Amino acid sequence: MKLAQLAAAIGARVDPASSANLEITGVVGIEHARAGELTFVANQKYSALAQTTKATAVIVAEDFPAIAATMLRSKNPYLSFAKAMQLFHPAQKYAPGVHPTAVIHAAARIGANAHIGPYVVIDEDVWIEADAVLLAHVVIYRGVSIGHNFFAHAHSVVREGCRIGNNVTIGNGVIIGGDGFGFAKDANGHWNKIPQPEPVVIGDEVEIQSNACIDRASVGATQIGRGTKIDNLVQIGHGSTVGEDSLLASQVGIAGSTEIGNRVILTGQVGVVGHCKVGDGAIVTPQSGVSGDVEAGAIVSGAPAVDHKAWLKYSAVLPRLPEMWRAMRGMVKKDVE
Amino acid sequence: MKLAQLAAAIGARVDPASSANLEITGVVGIEHARAGELTFVANQKYSALAQTTKATAVIVAEDFPAIAATMLRSKNPYLSFAKAMQLFHPAQKYAPGVHPTAVIHAAARIGANAHIGPYVVIDEDVWIEADAVLLAHVVIYRGVSIGHNFFAHAHSVVREGCRIGNNVTIGNGVIIGGDGFGFAKDANGHWNKIPQPEPVVIGDEVEIQSNACIDRASVGATQIGRGTKIDNLVQIGHGSTVGEDSLLASQVGIAGSTEIGNRVILTGQVGVVGHCKVGDGAIVTPQSGVSGDVEAGAIVSGAPAVDHKAWLKYSAVLPRLPEMWRAMRGMVKKDVE
Amino acid sequence: MKLAQLAAAIGARVDPASSANLEITGVVGIEHARAGELTFVANQKYSALAQTTKATAVIVAEDFPAIAATMLRSKNPYLSFAKAMQLFHPAQKYAPGVHPTAVIHAAARIGANAHIGPYVVIDEDVWIEADAVLLAHVVIYRGVSIGHNFFAHAHSVVREGCRIGNNVTIGNGVIIGGDGFGFAKDANGHWNKIPQPEPVVIGDEVEIQSNACIDRASVGATQIGRGTKIDNLVQIGHGSTVGEDSLLASQVGIAGSTEIGNRVILTGQVGVVGHCKVGDGAIVTPQSGVSGDVEAGAIVSGAPAVDHKAWLKYSAVLPRLPEMWRAMRGMVKKDVE
Repeated sequence: MKLAQLAAAIGARVDPASSANLEITGVVGIEHARAGELTFVANQKYSALAQTTKATAVIVAEDFPAIAATMLRSKNPYLSFAKAMQLFHPAQKYAPGVHPTAVIHAAARIGANAHIGPYVVIDEDVWIEADAVLLAHVVIYRGVSIGHNFFAHAHSVVREGCRIGNNVTIGNGVIIGGDGFGFAKDANGHWNKIPQPEPVVIGDEVEIQSNACIDRASVGATQIGRGTKIDNLVQIGHGSTVGEDSLLASQVGIAGSTEIGNRVILTGQVGVVGHCKVGDGAIVTPQSGVSGDVEAGAIVSGAPAVDHKAWLKYSAVLPRLPEMWRAMRGMVKKDVE
Repeated sequence: MKLAQLAAAIGARVDPASSANLEITGVVGIEHARAGELTFVANQKYSALAQTTKATAVIVAEDFPAIAATMLRSKNPYLSFAKAMQLFHPAQKYAPGVHPTAVIHAAARIGANAHIGPYVVIDEDVWIEADAVLLAHVVIYRGVSIGHNFFAHAHSVVREGCRIGNNVTIGNGVIIGGDGFGFAKDANGHWNKIPQPEPVVIGDEVEIQSNACIDRASVGATQIGRGTKIDNLVQIGHGSTVGEDSLLASQVGIAGSTEIGNRVILTGQVGVVGHCKVGDGAIVTPQSGVSGDVEAGAIVSGAPAVDHKAWLKYSAVLPRLPEMWRAMRGMVKKDVE
Repeated sequence: MKLAQLAAAIGARVDPASSANLEITGVVGIEHARAGELTFVANQKYSALAQTTKATAVIVAEDFPAIAATMLRSKNPYLSFAKAMQLFHPAQKYAPGVHPTAVIHAAARIGANAHIGPYVVIDEDVWIEADAVLLAHVVIYRGVSIGHNFFAHAHSVVREGCRIGNNVTIGNGVIIGGDGFGFAKDANGHWNKIPQPEPVVIGDEVEIQSNACIDRASVGATQIGRGTKIDNLVQIGHGSTVGEDSLLASQVGIAGSTEIGNRVILTGQVGVVGHCKVGDGAIVTPQSGVSGDVEAGAIVSGAPAVDHKAWLKYSAVLPRLPEMWRAMRGMVKKDVE
């Protein structure tokens, strides 16, 4: 693909313009790029490598200092990189057709052009719109409804009655709609099961990755808003809601009945307790433990999570604590004398 | 169902008694309840909503202040709610029968009334008692024995030789009896596998939810006591034991050879190191890291976990640390002068 | 097996030598050992039990004080225990053969002596060398190459194009090569998918246990070095590399583009942020959060992780913080007066 054509497709401009006819064969990481390839500077750590890369072209920000290689200048270099990757790596196609080993209930309705892989099991009263891809061993329990262009990787499961929007992708081993963790203690100290009849409801353009679990609820529903992306091994508890365009990184855990807003970023291993609210646009840094409401736009850290800057400051002092303790004991002692 | 009948079934009394003949059609959350429905106040945050709910009846504690709606007063409102849910949402029935695609070894014995779904695989010398439900793609390795009324959701696995009691439910993607993480280092720094021949032994009435893992052991066994409930993505290491009626919330991790007592509550993302004991009735708050023995009845928090109240107090001071550091440096300096 | 033969096989010597002809029937934990059995002291907590064990023989270190039972003295008792376990519990054999329900693409090549279980699905252009065991429901996507002596437990998945070395074992529910968590935000705040075409590359002798996830990458590859062992529910992000002979305990999470060295030990629930390096031989204690580079050989703890000894010291002072705060306020007040 010629640079000019590529630049137009990814929202960038060729600098210098005279390089517009150069040919690009692929997109690679900056450490490995060779002549004919396109690369990018997505992390400031790698800026220096741009000076010496053998790549034919580099996607950079509008104000990036000039380098020897041709630049594709972009207002949003990371987005341009994503689009370049999409150009060179279009999603794999799966031919329409139902594998003869798929077990599909007579009362299930599957839309046009579906690819249904081997050993898929679809129970009664399931409704899946057009252009679905269900790979091997996917199991859809009864009463599920799913929009168009659904993609389910091998071994994913959607439990009874869940509702999934359009253009949703679920990764391998994902469990949508497993029972919420709800039990009530009786006089003998035994835990009595609280039925969890209510579904998980997932908006359009959501992606949920490997082995993540979104639980169904006893009352209400568990909801994931349009455009939210959920990483591997994430847990979302019963009756919680996540807004739109949020990111939940790997191993995040959200307890029950909690509300996560729009455009929230929960980074790796973050935990959020039940019955609280995380406001729109909030960011929680890795491993932090949210124990109450978080204001919109806040950045919080630590366990219990506090303002990120406050956490940075007190974390820097923590290793000084023994010294402080000794000093204080000295002062107190002297004070007493 | 009439309120009088419902109240009797869930261990509550109708207040005022004159409402005994009102008809209830379902149980819903207090925010969404409409006329004809029953709701409940399970969390003090929602008490105010009870004043204005449109529900016909509300399950409340014996001493709850009177409200406009009819009350179902209960000594244990949450248990009464659980029982009401059980009444309106009885467990789904699966008709007895073996799907023709199930692969069941000739030397496996399955009790009466079993529902064996598509693509279930049961290996030799497996013994499953009556009334089992094994949904699609469940895999039972050889030599497993399972009590009556077993329920295994799609894609769950029970590994070789494990023993499971009566009335046990395992969720989607649960792995019972995967290899413990045991390796011994040799002189070259390579890790030599320690075989893990010993089984997981699970008591009656245990429920284990989506994608949780209970490892088998090298010596001894890994044991889960009667009535314990285990949430999604929990990890229980080889040779550990969990007592009866304990709750392990999502993403809890227990290392090897540790003993968790009876009626212990480990909340979300708690970690417990190996070779220690957590006493009966102990509670560990979210994300805490237990690094040694915990006394019976203790409530512990933080990492390393300490008494919960002590943790609350020191956590409140943490953001003051930079201020303390500066003040102390000032004092020390002045002291030197 | 006679003690002399056993000792030779596990790199130990019989003390006293006169016991060389005693017969051993199995290896068990020290609490449960009976006459005729071999046991071991692997953890100092159990040393006292060695005095009173009914076991015929105990594997101990060279300098262990003499006990009543016969000793198998070893320079590396834990390794000797591992080898004894291997002797008494050889890996289960699976007869060569392809189950008639396996769906194997015509353009896949499977080496000699393979055991392919029921409902295994192998897509096109897969190459698996000799002596593979793929148990029920394993799914291998297209273009995967795998060395000899591969063992895949039921319900594990290897995604498109991944490359796996010799003698690799993957546990139940393991997902090798799920999509990395890569999205770029556009002007509307929506997350645009970054394709993840690059594979996971796994060296020889690697073992990965239940429900762990190793993600594929957008550029570069995700790599696991020879001899590394990975526990249940671990997450390894896209483009990260793990060196040789490292141990990653349960629920560890490694974000993207991070380098973990050789012989590193990450204990349970540790998190490592993206774009950093953990040097050879480093140890990270449980639940710690690594937020930047870690030097080779370092032992680090806490979140953010610092030198382990520093963490031990400040952790011990943490519960004193409220007392320090009150004392300091008193001093400051007096100072002002």
